[in-house]
Amino acid sequence: MVKVGIVGGTGYTGVELLRLLAGHPEVDVAVITSRAEAGRPVSDIYPNLRGHFDISFTDPDLKQLKNCDLVFFATPNGTAMRMVPELLEGDCKVIDLAADFRIKDLAVWSQWYGMEHACPEMVAEAVYGLPEVNRSAIKQARLVANPGCYPTAATLGFLPIVEAGSANLKGLIADCKSGVSGAGRGASVGMLMGEVGESFKAYGVPGHRHMPEIKQNLSVAAGQEVDLTFVAHLLPMIRGIHATLYATVAGDVDLQSLYEQRYANEPFVDVLPLGSHPETRSVRGVNHCRIAIHRPQGGDTVVILSVIDNLVKGAAGQAIQNMNIMLGLEESLGLRSVALLP
Amino acid sequence: MVKVGIVGGTGYTGVELLRLLAGHPEVDVAVITSRAEAGRPVSDIYPNLRGHFDISFTDPDLKQLKNCDLVFFATPNGTAMRMVPELLEGDCKVIDLAADFRIKDLAVWSQWYGMEHACPEMVAEAVYGLPEVNRSAIKQARLVANPGCYPTAATLGFLPIVEAGSANLKGLIADCKSGVSGAGRGASVGMLMGEVGESFKAYGVPGHRHMPEIKQNLSVAAGQEVDLTFVAHLLPMIRGIHATLYATVAGDVDLQSLYEQRYANEPFVDVLPLGSHPETRSVRGVNHCRIAIHRPQGGDTVVILSVIDNLVKGAAGQAIQNMNIMLGLEESLGLRSVALLP
Amino acid sequence: MVKVGIVGGTGYTGVELLRLLAGHPEVDVAVITSRAEAGRPVSDIYPNLRGHFDISFTDPDLKQLKNCDLVFFATPNGTAMRMVPELLEGDCKVIDLAADFRIKDLAVWSQWYGMEHACPEMVAEAVYGLPEVNRSAIKQARLVANPGCYPTAATLGFLPIVEAGSANLKGLIADCKSGVSGAGRGASVGMLMGEVGESFKAYGVPGHRHMPEIKQNLSVAAGQEVDLTFVAHLLPMIRGIHATLYATVAGDVDLQSLYEQRYANEPFVDVLPLGSHPETRSVRGVNHCRIAIHRPQGGDTVVILSVIDNLVKGAAGQAIQNMNIMLGLEESLGLRSVALLP
Amino acid sequence: MVKVGIVGGTGYTGVELLRLLAGHPEVDVAVITSRAEAGRPVSDIYPNLRGHFDISFTDPDLKQLKNCDLVFFATPNGTAMRMVPELLEGDCKVIDLAADFRIKDLAVWSQWYGMEHACPEMVAEAVYGLPEVNRSAIKQARLVANPGCYPTAATLGFLPIVEAGSANLKGLIADCKSGVSGAGRGASVGMLMGEVGESFKAYGVPGHRHMPEIKQNLSVAAGQEVDLTFVAHLLPMIRGIHATLYATVAGDVDLQSLYEQRYANEPFVDVLPLGSHPETRSVRGVNHCRIAIHRPQGGDTVVILSVIDNLVKGAAGQAIQNMNIMLGLEESLGLRSVALLP
Repeated sequence: MVKVGIVGGTGYTGVELLRLLAGHPEVDVAVITSRAEAGRPVSDIYPNLRGHFDISFTDPDLKQLKNCDLVFFATPNGTAMRMVPELLEGDCKVIDLAADFRIKDLAVWSQWYGMEHACPEMVAEAVYGLPEVNRSAIKQARLVANPGCYPTAATLGFLPIVEAGSANLKGLIADCKSGVSGAGRGASVGMLMGEVGESFKAYGVPGHRHMPEIKQNLSVAAGQEVDLTFVAHLLPMIRGIHATLYATVAGDVDLQSLYEQRYANEPFVDVLPLGSHPETRSVRGVNHCRIAIHRPQGGDTVVILSVIDNLVKGAAGQAIQNMNIMLGLEESLGLRSVALLP
Repeated sequence: MVKVGIVGGTGYTGVELLRLLAGHPEVDVAVITSRAEAGRPVSDIYPNLRGHFDISFTDPDLKQLKNCDLVFFATPNGTAMRMVPELLEGDCKVIDLAADFRIKDLAVWSQWYGMEHACPEMVAEAVYGLPEVNRSAIKQARLVANPGCYPTAATLGFLPIVEAGSANLKGLIADCKSGVSGAGRGASVGMLMGEVGESFKAYGVPGHRHMPEIKQNLSVAAGQEVDLTFVAHLLPMIRGIHATLYATVAGDVDLQSLYEQRYANEPFVDVLPLGSHPETRSVRGVNHCRIAIHRPQGGDTVVILSVIDNLVKGAAGQAIQNMNIMLGLEESLGLRSVALLP
Repeated sequence: MVKVGIVGGTGYTGVELLRLLAGHPEVDVAVITSRAEAGRPVSDIYPNLRGHFDISFTDPDLKQLKNCDLVFFATPNGTAMRMVPELLEGDCKVIDLAADFRIKDLAVWSQWYGMEHACPEMVAEAVYGLPEVNRSAIKQARLVANPGCYPTAATLGFLPIVEAGSANLKGLIADCKSGVSGAGRGASVGMLMGEVGESFKAYGVPGHRHMPEIKQNLSVAAGQEVDLTFVAHLLPMIRGIHATLYATVAGDVDLQSLYEQRYANEPFVDVLPLGSHPETRSVRGVNHCRIAIHRPQGGDTVVILSVIDNLVKGAAGQAIQNMNIMLGLEESLGLRSVALLP
Repeated sequence: MVKVGIVGGTGYTGVELLRLLAGHPEVDVAVITSRAEAGRPVSDIYPNLRGHFDISFTDPDLKQLKNCDLVFFATPNGTAMRMVPELLEGDCKVIDLAADFRIKDLAVWSQWYGMEHACPEMVAEAVYGLPEVNRSAIKQARLVANPGCYPTAATLGFLPIVEAGSANLKGLIADCKSGVSGAGRGASVGMLMGEVGESFKAYGVPGHRHMPEIKQNLSVAAGQEVDLTFVAHLLPMIRGIHATLYATVAGDVDLQSLYEQRYANEPFVDVLPLGSHPETRSVRGVNHCRIAIHRPQGGDTVVILSVIDNLVKGAAGQAIQNMNIMLGLEESLGLRSVALLP
C-alpha cells in the first residue's frame, strides 16, 4: 500500500480526492490537513465519506507529510510553492492541484497570479501533468503540476490538430463553459444558488488565468506561438466543463481519423463517432474526456467539442492518474467507475 | 381596444403571449385556438392565468380570426403559410412567430425546413420583424415574420460592427446557448429533466435552421455575403439565450461608442458599460437585449456578449413590440416590467 | 404620488420591492439605504433595474426617511426596532419585513431571536400584516409587521379550517419547502450552488423561528393554543414555498366550500378546484397564494397544499399590499402581473 | 462469474443496473433486452457506458434468458408477471424491479394497478426484497419483488419505531419528495424540464400506488393494520428521495439508540448522530439510506428524516443487493462506491 497525504482537504478537490481514493486498491490516505477544521473527522464535513474514512483533519505538519510516498496539494494558489522545497528534500513526491507550477514563464505567472514565485527553480523541474502529452516525463517526476480544468478540456480538444499542423495558429477560439464547482467551496455572494441558478453568463473575458496556460500548452504542441481567444462561462449546474473550440483548418486532412489515431491508446480520452455531441453528464464523476469533431457544412472552420468533469479529469482524477504513473501503478487504478447518468 | 387572435396557443410562446398581453392596456385577446384543447379554459392548462383570462381554446376558425385586428401564429413551422393568404384578404394583420416567412430565398428555406412553401408570393411581401432594423417597414406591414430566438440575440450583437464595416466578414462565429424552453412544450425524451438537467451539450452542429437566418440578417447589414459558423448549445435552465460572438476587427474603431450610438434610441437594446458580463437573468421575463463588448488583451478579436429571454425578445415580446408598431401604438406598451431577479 | 423609503435595499427583499414598485403607478421610491453600497446606483448591483431606477444607495439618514410617507425595512432582524420609534415621531408609516414586531409575546421573541427587544411598547402597537386576517387594523396602523414567508403560506393554508373549529388542534403538521432565495443574499458556504444544487434536505428541525409565529397565528384564529410541528426544507430552486399541511378533521364539514367561502373576496388567495396540485411556478413573481384541499381516500386526515412566492406574498409583495391598504390605495395596485411560467 | 440478464434495459433503472454491474467483480451481463432498441449497442444510447460494455440490446427471448443465473426485470408494471412463470421453470432466479409481486393482497393490487394478475400463485411465493426485513427469506428465494423507491425510504425510516411498538399506529404521515428520475424515461409533457424545473408540487395526493405498499410493510412490522397518509412531491432535481416521516410517540423510549441498535449490522442503513439533517446528495449514486431522528421541542411528535437515491437503494442498487444475497455473494459486492458530492 502506498501512503499519501492531502494538504488542504476541505475544498471540492479535496473531497473529490477522498471519494476517488476510497476506491483505490493500492492507496492509504495517511494524512489530510486543514487549519480551519483540524480535529474534525472528514465525514463530519462530508457525510458521503461516512463508513469510508475514519481519518480526521490535522494541522499541516511537514514531518508527517514527509512520511508519505506522495502528497497532493489541494490548496489555494501560492501555498504549495512555500512547502514543496522542504517536502522534496525527502523521498516524498508531490502533485500540486493548484497553479503554482503550471506556467514555465515566471514573468507571465507573476502577472496573472499577482505574486512573486517562492521557488522559481522548482518551476523548471516541475512536469506539467497532462499524461496524454507528458506521460514519460511524469513517470520520472518528483513534482507534477496538475493542469487546470479549462486547460485540460481545451488542450485535449485542440492537441491533435495543432500537433499535426492542420490548424491555422492565428485565431484559435476556446469558448468554454463550466459548472459552479470549479469556483470552489469558499463563501461568496457570487456563487450563491440565488445568484447563479437558472442563469448563465460569461466571466473574466478581459483576461482569465487559464488563458496563458492553454496558450503555453498549444504553443508547445505547435512548436511555435499560437494566438488564442479564451472565454469562460458559468453554467447553472455543479459539475462539468464543455469546451467548444474553433479553428480554421489548414490543408487537407481527415480530422476524425487524426483524432482517433492520436488518442488510440489513451485510456481516458474517447473520440466519439462522427456527428456526435458529447454531454457533460456522460463524464460526470469519471476521468474521461470525450471529444467530437465537426466541420459544419464542410467549411474551413472546425468545431471541436470536448467535455470533462472539472473535478475529475479537470482536477482530482487527473491527479490520481498522475500519481499512478509516478508510482508505477496501473494508470487507471481507482478510476474505472462509470459516469453517473442520469 | 384592439382585438387580437392567437393561433396555436398551448405552447410556450402561446402562454407567453397571454402573460404579456394580460398587462397590455390596449389589447383584448378575442380568440385563442388549439385543436387539441378546444373547449378548455386557458387557465386550466396554465394556472398562472387564473383570474387574468376567462377565455377558452377554440378550434381554429378563419372567419372568427378575420374579425381580429391582428393575429399571432404561435404554431409549428408550416402552419401559418397555409392560413395567411386567406386571413390577409380582410383587414386583419398577421405576425408569424414560426419560421414560414423569415427566409427570403425560397430554395434555402425549403432546404432547411424540408417542405415546399405554400405561398411564395407572401414571403416577398413579409417584413422581417426586427424593429432595430426594419422599424419603418414594420409600421407599413400586413405580414411580419417574427425573428427566431438565436437570430435575434446574434443579429443584435453583430449588427453595429457589421453595418459599420468594422468586422472581417469571413470567420464570424456565433457560439450560442439556450434554455430548454426554446425547444417548446412537445413531449420528447430528449427534453426530459432527467435528460437535460445538470448537463450541457452542443446540438445541431452540422447544421441548424437558425444559421441561414442569421446569415441572411448579417449579409443584408453588410451589403454582401458573410461567412458564419453557428453552434447552438442547450443550457440546464428554462429561459434565456446567451450569444457569445467572435469577429476579427477590421480597422481602427471605438466599438463601445459605435454600439452605444447605434442603439441610443432603441427602447429594448441596452449596451452595458465597458467590462460588463450580462447575465441571462437580467432579462428574464422582459423584452430587453443586453449587450457587452470586449476586446481581450487589446487584440484583434472582438468578443460580443448578447443576452435575451428566448420567450420574450426571442419570441412573444418581440411579437408584441411588432404589433405595437404595426397598430400605431406606443412601442413599449405592455413590455415595461422589470426582469425577475433573483 | 406617494414617497417611500427602503432601509437595507441590497438583499433579495430589497430588490424585489424595487422590482414591484417600478410598476406601481402611485409610488415614488425617494430613498434607498445601504451602508455597504452607499453611493452606488441600484442598477449597478441589480442590472434588471437598468432603465427603471436612477436612484443610488445612500447611508441611512433618519431625517431623510422621515420625509417619506412610508418606510420599508428590508433589514436583518434587530435593525428596525432601533430606528422605528424615532421614525414614528413624524407622520411616516413603517412596514418591517423582518421579524422585530411579529411576535406579541416578548419572552418568546427573545428566546427565538436571541436578543432583548429595543422597543417593547411598539410590539403591542404593531399590526401583524396578514391582510386576510387583519385588513381593517392594517388600514389604521402606523406600524405593520410583515409576516414571515413560511408563516404566510402555512397560516393561509390552515386558517379556514382552524377558524371554523373543524380541525383537531393537537397534532397540526406543517411540512414546508422553500427555494434558496428565502435564505437571503449573504455570503455563506451553506447556500453555494455547489452545496444546495441538485440536493434536498430538511433544516432547523429541532426549532425554527417561524414555528412560534405560525403557532401564534393559528392560536389567535382558534381562540386557544394550538399544537404544531413545523419542518422546513430547502429546495434546489430559487423562488417558491410549498406548504403541505396535515390536520385531523373534527366533525362533518365540506372543506372545499369552507375554503372557497373564506377566501371568496380575497384578491390574492386562490382556492383551486377539487383534486388540484398547485405548483410553485404558478405564483412565481406574483402576490398570490394558491391552495388545494385533499382528503385522501376520504379519511380523517386533511392535506392542504399552499404555495406562494417567498419573495412576493412571502415578503415584498405582501408588504406592498399592506402599503396599499395603509395608504388608502387600491389593494392590488402594482401587484397585478401574471406569474412567470414556464 | 455469474451470468445475469436484464429485461427492458433502456429505462433509468436499466442503465443504472448496467452502471453498477460494470463494477461488480462477479457478474457478467449476458443479455439485455429491448424491443424498441434491438440491435443497438447499449453505449449508443448511454454514452457513459462506452468502454464498459460491448453488449447490444436484443429482442426478449425466454430461451436465452433461461440460461442466466438471474434475470432482472426493469420493465413496466405487468410485464414480468407474464414471463416469470416460464422463466422459473428452469434454474434461473428472478428479481422484478416493477410492482408485479410487491402486494400480497391481490384485490388491493388489482385496484391500484388496474389489471388482473397473470400469475397469482407466484405472488404468494415472491419475497419482498427489503434485506433489512427479509434477508433470510431472500437468501432462499427464487423470485424477489424489489421494493418501490418511496416504500424503501419510508419503510426503513418507520421500521424501528413501528416494530418496537413505540409509535401510535394511527396518524402516521409520510411526506415524501422525489427527484424526477423516479418518473422514468418515457416521453411526457409533464416531465419536461420546462415543466418541472425550478418548481415544486405534490402529486397523486388522492391516491398513490406506493401507499398500499408502505402500509403493507408497516402493518407487517407492527403485527396489525396501521393508518398512513402518504403524500408524494416532485423535486426539481434528478436523483434522490427525502422522506419526512411523522408519528406520535407511544411510551418512553430512547429513539436514537433504538434506531442505532436496529440497524447496527446493516451495511446500507446509516443512522446519523443526533441533530443531523441528511441531504439527498450524501447518497447520490450509492445504495445507502441515511436516517436522522428528531423530537422537536421534546414533544410527542417524532420527525424521522430518511434519504436514499431512488435509482440505487430505491431500485437498481437494492436489486443488486438482493442478487448478492440470493446468489450467496458478499452482500455489498459492487455497491461500495462513495456518493458523488458535490
